[in-house]
Amino acid sequence: MAASLRLRGAASGLWYRSHRPRPAAASLAAVASRSMASKTPVGFIGLGNMGNPMAKNLMKHGYPLIIYDVFPDACKEFQEAGEQVVSSPADVAEKADRIITMLPTSINAVEAYSGANGILKKVKKGSLLIDSSTIDPAVSKELAKEVEKMGAVFMDAPVSGGVGAARSGNLTFMVGGVEDEFAAAKELLGCMGSNVVYCGAVGTGQAAKICNNMLLAISMIGTAETMNLGIRLGLDPKLLAKILNMSSGRCWSSDTYNPVPGVMDGVPSANNYQGGFGTTLMAKDLGLAQDSATSTKSPILLGSLAHQIFRMMCAKGYSKKDFSAVFQFLREEENF
Amino acid sequence: MAASLRLRGAASGLWYRSHRPRPAAASLAAVASRSMASKTPVGFIGLGNMGNPMAKNLMKHGYPLIIYDVFPDACKEFQEAGEQVVSSPADVAEKADRIITMLPTSINAVEAYSGANGILKKVKKGSLLIDSSTIDPAVSKELAKEVEKMGAVFMDAPVSGGVGAARSGNLTFMVGGVEDEFAAAKELLGCMGSNVVYCGAVGTGQAAKICNNMLLAISMIGTAETMNLGIRLGLDPKLLAKILNMSSGRCWSSDTYNPVPGVMDGVPSANNYQGGFGTTLMAKDLGLAQDSATSTKSPILLGSLAHQIFRMMCAKGYSKKDFSAVFQFLREEENF
Amino acid sequence: MAASLRLRGAASGLWYRSHRPRPAAASLAAVASRSMASKTPVGFIGLGNMGNPMAKNLMKHGYPLIIYDVFPDACKEFQEAGEQVVSSPADVAEKADRIITMLPTSINAVEAYSGANGILKKVKKGSLLIDSSTIDPAVSKELAKEVEKMGAVFMDAPVSGGVGAARSGNLTFMVGGVEDEFAAAKELLGCMGSNVVYCGAVGTGQAAKICNNMLLAISMIGTAETMNLGIRLGLDPKLLAKILNMSSGRCWSSDTYNPVPGVMDGVPSANNYQGGFGTTLMAKDLGLAQDSATSTKSPILLGSLAHQIFRMMCAKGYSKKDFSAVFQFLREEENF
Amino acid sequence: MAASLRLRGAASGLWYRSHRPRPAAASLAAVASRSMASKTPVGFIGLGNMGNPMAKNLMKHGYPLIIYDVFPDACKEFQEAGEQVVSSPADVAEKADRIITMLPTSINAVEAYSGANGILKKVKKGSLLIDSSTIDPAVSKELAKEVEKMGAVFMDAPVSGGVGAARSGNLTFMVGGVEDEFAAAKELLGCMGSNVVYCGAVGTGQAAKICNNMLLAISMIGTAETMNLGIRLGLDPKLLAKILNMSSGRCWSSDTYNPVPGVMDGVPSANNYQGGFGTTLMAKDLGLAQDSATSTKSPILLGSLAHQIFRMMCAKGYSKKDFSAVFQFLREEENF
Repeated sequence: MAASLRLRGAASGLWYRSHRPRPAAASLAAVASRSMASKTPVGFIGLGNMGNPMAKNLMKHGYPLIIYDVFPDACKEFQEAGEQVVSSPADVAEKADRIITMLPTSINAVEAYSGANGILKKVKKGSLLIDSSTIDPAVSKELAKEVEKMGAVFMDAPVSGGVGAARSGNLTFMVGGVEDEFAAAKELLGCMGSNVVYCGAVGTGQAAKICNNMLLAISMIGTAETMNLGIRLGLDPKLLAKILNMSSGRCWSSDTYNPVPGVMDGVPSANNYQGGFGTTLMAKDLGLAQDSATSTKSPILLGSLAHQIFRMMCAKGYSKKDFSAVFQFLREEENF
Repeated sequence: MAASLRLRGAASGLWYRSHRPRPAAASLAAVASRSMASKTPVGFIGLGNMGNPMAKNLMKHGYPLIIYDVFPDACKEFQEAGEQVVSSPADVAEKADRIITMLPTSINAVEAYSGANGILKKVKKGSLLIDSSTIDPAVSKELAKEVEKMGAVFMDAPVSGGVGAARSGNLTFMVGGVEDEFAAAKELLGCMGSNVVYCGAVGTGQAAKICNNMLLAISMIGTAETMNLGIRLGLDPKLLAKILNMSSGRCWSSDTYNPVPGVMDGVPSANNYQGGFGTTLMAKDLGLAQDSATSTKSPILLGSLAHQIFRMMCAKGYSKKDFSAVFQFLREEENF
Repeated sequence: MAASLRLRGAASGLWYRSHRPRPAAASLAAVASRSMASKTPVGFIGLGNMGNPMAKNLMKHGYPLIIYDVFPDACKEFQEAGEQVVSSPADVAEKADRIITMLPTSINAVEAYSGANGILKKVKKGSLLIDSSTIDPAVSKELAKEVEKMGAVFMDAPVSGGVGAARSGNLTFMVGGVEDEFAAAKELLGCMGSNVVYCGAVGTGQAAKICNNMLLAISMIGTAETMNLGIRLGLDPKLLAKILNMSSGRCWSSDTYNPVPGVMDGVPSANNYQGGFGTTLMAKDLGLAQDSATSTKSPILLGSLAHQIFRMMCAKGYSKKDFSAVFQFLREEENF
Repeated sequence: MAASLRLRGAASGLWYRSHRPRPAAASLAAVASRSMASKTPVGFIGLGNMGNPMAKNLMKHGYPLIIYDVFPDACKEFQEAGEQVVSSPADVAEKADRIITMLPTSINAVEAYSGANGILKKVKKGSLLIDSSTIDPAVSKELAKEVEKMGAVFMDAPVSGGVGAARSGNLTFMVGGVEDEFAAAKELLGCMGSNVVYCGAVGTGQAAKICNNMLLAISMIGTAETMNLGIRLGLDPKLLAKILNMSSGRCWSSDTYNPVPGVMDGVPSANNYQGGFGTTLMAKDLGLAQDSATSTKSPILLGSLAHQIFRMMCAKGYSKKDFSAVFQFLREEENF
């Protein structure tokens, strides 16, 4: 896998530096000077659907924010609330020694860190940089190396739970990075989530997120196929769900988020698959799983097929619907 | 293959009779004469790994048995215990008006009912015939029609839970058939299982069983792929299982029957995949799911692939191992 | 579904008779009396899209026909042309000692042979019964046994080539049955096809047909996926097809029936996927492959997935389009 | 797709430069000075199984070589033959203005070009750099950008055909790059291959290679599944191959490289799957197809499953065997 990591940081000189001796303990003294206890400003980059409520929860806990987003409109609300808005990730890094990034893709994360006006251009020694984006763990590792070279600390901390959990401060954070820094990360993440789990070295936060979502995707499609087959064989959907849920077929997709309209209340299938976790986001996460599996040579027969199925759904008009709409996608009858 | 050919060999006269008008309510009077309350003899056909402890539980509840198995040795134990052993399914039907069949395949079930010395040759009007074999629901429906023509009642009641549950009387029965007869069936099945679920019309017991096992197969392979990928990405297996189990990836295969050695105690993965539910049995059940899906034109993309994966495992020496050995099947590393 | 249930409904007496000693050489003397050389009447059952032009080719070669179809309208044209129309398969068997059946499904074939007014009710000893329907090889074998018991001869002879080839007499027949009878079959089949191939024992004609179509399905989807990927990677479709066709990716679907509009003339992809081989028929043949693979425990990972893909296409409105429309099904772009 | 390209040249500043205006026509004057007509030295980097015979064919055509390989032993033979061996890719670039690279993976190619002693360190303006490695087309595009910035020309020209074709000078080259430079590339490539195909812009050579091999992989597995199913259904393998090859199932894997022992002579299946195209190499190419499909959001249901199948074969001891050994992998019988 080392090889593929190097590959992804390809081309321009990055990768071969990774063989140099690691700057041992370089950051320890620096870290001592970081302002952890007092509520000094926290940088926040990426104020989208998720970032917005997350940042607000930090505010509620009394942290002054240094804000940046590529779309100035996304910052307005925070400016009006008295937070400081700056004009680049570099500027955030100049004013805050703890920064949270919440961005849609690996590319955006790379740009925020390594771009022309990226964090790394002005990051202070000892800073704590927490990336809550869901991206390729190999990219997280590359970013961590770059950050470490500047004498700062990087942790990957992707979330599970959607916009609702972000608003109520009930996200789950899966955190990868040096264990000694976990307490410092938890101080901030605990303001936004009810569950902050340490997963291991840098990249394992992403790995845990990707793994969970791959299994979720598989069991959701499996539940949809099973419910559909059962219905065609004459079973009542509610009864079938009840039987599965007291048997070995039980899974989160069958007992908590059943994809068949009429089986449960308060889930997307009860509301025409609106809200919830968009099919396009699931397809994106499965693309990350696919990349990780290819680079680690791990066979993922069902995971790979699940990826292709959500991919097709996106092309057939389901991209904005909740991913449990796979039941609708499969259930249509042949007429001939 | 010969076997399945025979099964499929619809042909000679059965099928086109199915268009005849149904003998409406033909059995009601007859049923009235069946001895349900008192502990009159119960027939039991098929005393294999599962049938043996099931029959013993009936004995414990005070039911005299009329026993038949194609292998006379399987009957010895019961003969010694004073039960009556006869020499054909027809003879069972002559002496008992409630009969339970527990046979390995559709073919065996068809033979026991419709064979030259089958139950139907001597079945009494009003008899209750309960088939606990796991077979194609379409075959159950055919058997039910044949039985009904003789003025008797047929129910399909396949089980979940293995030999252990059979011994302790804790099986789950999924029962399909006329609802009015469910109470009569439950009287007997309740001696052998702690859970007796009414699923609907004839065939829905089988459908429920097949559906559950298909979803189980999918989520087990999904769990194995996910755990394997996570481990290769640097996650500790116990930690990964813990994260999945508190998240949306949670399923019976991850939280109750985890396939990775070292994650849980008391499951087959902790014991070199011995015991449990054999891969060959799972492959058989998935074959039934495949047949049902093909005949109902239901798309089962993951179910179908899961079938093929267990099929391959059987060919690679895993047939006797527990089906969670799919983790072992997938985890091997490439060396090159 | 009802139909397939009936087919599978083995049950009542057929299958266990298959153990009886085979009536050795029973038919040989009988066969001697069959009128092979002279142009005595030939029975033809099933005058649909394929059967109609096939029967006409027999007429062109001077064979008087005895005609039956469940839809009387299908017979009109032949009646007007002076052929004899009768009112059941049994009546055909009474008047002709060579009969060709061309029916849509296994169930129809079983009914035509074993139904209440089926061929077997009045078949003459020594008759030659050729079934050109595409059905489960296991059913062909069952029919052969039934026919043999009547002292007649059964051969399975499914065709490849569509309506066009049927009209021009250029079908390919894949023939299974006793080799000694192949010449007699070829005399008739050669009037309707340019290629009559002996495949082996009864059922192997069907097996060859199913195998060819499974590989065709796989390579067609593979071609569609490949062309689509190449186009998205910036390749010109015509150039890509040319490269594949001179390389190891070459297949009938890429060089003779390319699924991408604009690459070839005179194929369904050049005509909005009209004409050709309907997706619903391909899905049917893959269902037969799936059944055969399940009963012989043969792993067909790609074949099984191909089946599911055509199954989904049928549910998404592609059932009447040529099966190469899988390119269209896959090519849609995600928009988000 | 632009996005993913940037991602892959991630992290250290490479990607965002890609937005700068392209140095229009910068190289034209420079190219004028390149020595194309006369047989001036040609650089060759990577003298492995394929590179070795390719370089020898250039020698046979009278081109003096400047040689480099990370393994000095690989150069010995050429040194003894009087060719000049140097100690880094940079040194090759100093002495030759036409260079061919033939390396096993994307990482090696990136190192040879962009490494500390890579070609780009000393490349002359107007040089022609041809990469015949099979790598991710996105990496080819990145390399092309880097090369272009130095005022030189890059073309991707992966090969099909194995060691035998390399020896006999019968490789096929699929070439991507500026069309004006194709003639110059063909002068050299024509010494090593009998087929030099222009595919379009940079990266399309790789795209064509990947597409062909994906379709090859799919049709090979399809052929193996089909032959195996047919054999189990009672067909003679040679006869089945013959039928497929005259029908619509025909493909290169069935008619030129049949995977079933005994069907053809002179192919790996006739020699215990030795020689040919190693399973591990096919798995690698399918990994590239998977990456390309994920980044372009192209659904490859069969391609993806084919990837996983070859991946599993690598883990089960087949990595060194020819990829047609998938027949052997699938054919084992279940025993139970």
